[in-house]
Amino acid sequence: MNNFRLIQTCPDSKARAGELVTPHGLVPTPVFLPVGSQGTVKTLTPEELKNMGMAIVLANTYHLYLRPGISVIEKMGGLHQFMAWDRAILTDSGGYQIFSLAPLRQVSDDGVIFRSHIDGSQHHITPELIIQFQEALGADIIMTLDKCPACDDTLEKVRRAMDRTHRWAERCQKCHRRNDQALYAIIQGGVFPQLRRQSVAYLTSLGFSGYAIGGLSLGEPKSVTLDITEATVALLPENKPRYLMGVGSPEDIIEAVARGVDIFDSALPTRVARNGALFTGQGRHNIQNSVYSQMEQPIDPECDCYTCRTFSAAYLHHLFRCGELLAYRLATIHNLNFISNLMHKVRSAILNGTFSSFRENFLAGYKPTDEQVRLSQKQKWLKSHNLSK
Amino acid sequence: MNNFRLIQTCPDSKARAGELVTPHGLVPTPVFLPVGSQGTVKTLTPEELKNMGMAIVLANTYHLYLRPGISVIEKMGGLHQFMAWDRAILTDSGGYQIFSLAPLRQVSDDGVIFRSHIDGSQHHITPELIIQFQEALGADIIMTLDKCPACDDTLEKVRRAMDRTHRWAERCQKCHRRNDQALYAIIQGGVFPQLRRQSVAYLTSLGFSGYAIGGLSLGEPKSVTLDITEATVALLPENKPRYLMGVGSPEDIIEAVARGVDIFDSALPTRVARNGALFTGQGRHNIQNSVYSQMEQPIDPECDCYTCRTFSAAYLHHLFRCGELLAYRLATIHNLNFISNLMHKVRSAILNGTFSSFRENFLAGYKPTDEQVRLSQKQKWLKSHNLSK
Repeated sequence: MNNFRLIQTCPDSKARAGELVTPHGLVPTPVFLPVGSQGTVKTLTPEELKNMGMAIVLANTYHLYLRPGISVIEKMGGLHQFMAWDRAILTDSGGYQIFSLAPLRQVSDDGVIFRSHIDGSQHHITPELIIQFQEALGADIIMTLDKCPACDDTLEKVRRAMDRTHRWAERCQKCHRRNDQALYAIIQGGVFPQLRRQSVAYLTSLGFSGYAIGGLSLGEPKSVTLDITEATVALLPENKPRYLMGVGSPEDIIEAVARGVDIFDSALPTRVARNGALFTGQGRHNIQNSVYSQMEQPIDPECDCYTCRTFSAAYLHHLFRCGELLAYRLATIHNLNFISNLMHKVRSAILNGTFSSFRENFLAGYKPTDEQVRLSQKQKWLKSHNLSK
Repeated sequence: MNNFRLIQTCPDSKARAGELVTPHGLVPTPVFLPVGSQGTVKTLTPEELKNMGMAIVLANTYHLYLRPGISVIEKMGGLHQFMAWDRAILTDSGGYQIFSLAPLRQVSDDGVIFRSHIDGSQHHITPELIIQFQEALGADIIMTLDKCPACDDTLEKVRRAMDRTHRWAERCQKCHRRNDQALYAIIQGGVFPQLRRQSVAYLTSLGFSGYAIGGLSLGEPKSVTLDITEATVALLPENKPRYLMGVGSPEDIIEAVARGVDIFDSALPTRVARNGALFTGQGRHNIQNSVYSQMEQPIDPECDCYTCRTFSAAYLHHLFRCGELLAYRLATIHNLNFISNLMHKVRSAILNGTFSSFRENFLAGYKPTDEQVRLSQKQKWLKSHNLSK
């Protein structure tokens, strides 16, 4: 019922087109999951997500456990009904958030004791509880509890986190009961190829419905992210989906697709939208820049999204200048529509055997955010989430 | 082209049904104008406003003059095109905002010198400029520049503000060129019936397309608001629309309709929505109250708005608790839909000759916000706008 079909592989790269079969519909891959941690993709309704072709969204067990509480959502008929979304949902286990957002953690093999980042209340989580929570939420795809190290931790520290991740994954698998839900394991091992190899070997020997690559896109250089992704994917079974967690810029998505990744999630497109940074075929443009103050054209004249079909760049600039709430919504619609279209084009290119030229053309036209700027923004963001050193 | 048709008068009260004929369509009256001061009804798209039956919105000349600037909107093809709204627009002159928001004002017969509340820059406004700005914006209905006194000013002070308002209204009328725009005058005179009488006499002798009652709903008791409204409306010509500025709670709208008012505007329905206060037939309920934390029903099971058709009260409660941006939007949709439906019911009742029983039934079921609470909230709000003493 809940599985993955591989449809086509690119002759010149590792890119592949497929589909996830879920109780809430087919999800064509490669696919990007918009982030709706608290049961809402910030600013948008379910209808708007559907209108831009989204087949699946991500929600977060840690956030929903703290607010409104798992039992509330269960009483409301499960997460699909609670957020009025009848397409597929993937819930992240919340491992990453426990180790980044929550202060005062005590980690043991048993599980984690942490304090809520909201009210300081103390909580005790185990791999078994995380599965129980995710079964109650009822997402189509659920994740094992993992321990995510920082990107500059020592090999020894990363190994310990990985070993714990493996033991927890095994316990998650053992207690998982709902066979309408696919359980994916999270591969750790940091930036060390030998650890990634061990993690893949261990987790694939247990056998999961899919494999996520965790612990990347945490402040390491992009070349490292891609190299580790490539090396890890090369070891994974062909017939299972591969999910690269936390990667969501257009250029990174295309490069990771070329290395065989099927699934992506990232708050980047929605987060930068709320800062006024909008994707175009030429790169990210900031609508708050005064060059847009009198521009009658939409920010991207080639774009078919509601925002670009309806409003001038000058209007959007004005809304941002005034801090009007509609600004964040219109920018979010644009960025998610851009990514949705991008995934559609990527998939068509793979199916048509033209992915390599598509990749080349896209990257030739798209000016990525300057690496220095990117890293300093990332550090700032990680710092606000307690994850940098 | 741009005029008012009186269709039906209630036999038991002064309530009347009519329609405004504008270059951007018919506007059935009594009508409520959602407030879109900066060229956006906060959180909503034009489509959402249309879906709830809104035929006209209000924008503000003062705000648009400061940001993005009148000439920008003119270059973008006028306000309708700028905000992508093809139905009617009324622009307020901004008199009220200049005298409430802007610090360091110097008022003379010539006009006002004030500082922007945004960046402190100095500006000089005259009645002629305000008309020129409104002609450039291109709204269907525009307003004269008025001087609005505080609700507890002395009779002498209120009289001086009124006299100045009259001289400015005359100058506005003289320089107004666009005959596709209706120009409404604003009656002042505070809480003094003899001044209101003088103001009506003076302004009706000049002859405007409509008459607004300004200077009310500024912290005086509700009974005074209604008494002054009643006394003022009684003096106004039958064949011109009457517009009560700044009144927008359901119970006040119904009482003012019964006294012969045709047009209303107020930020109240949208402002309180963003605080979680939602209209129902029984009164305002705050969705942040913990009684809603596990309620599967929508906040108002009888409501046909998108929010109530789609989401449980528990979900909306959750979004507010988390400060999620979607919360403000869903609450705004609900409150404006409630007011739009209310205006529709009020008008149908007048047309069917059942307004008196409708008024009685509505007010019997609707528990208004406690008068003490209301006045203290109002004072707090006025204080933040420099208008209280």
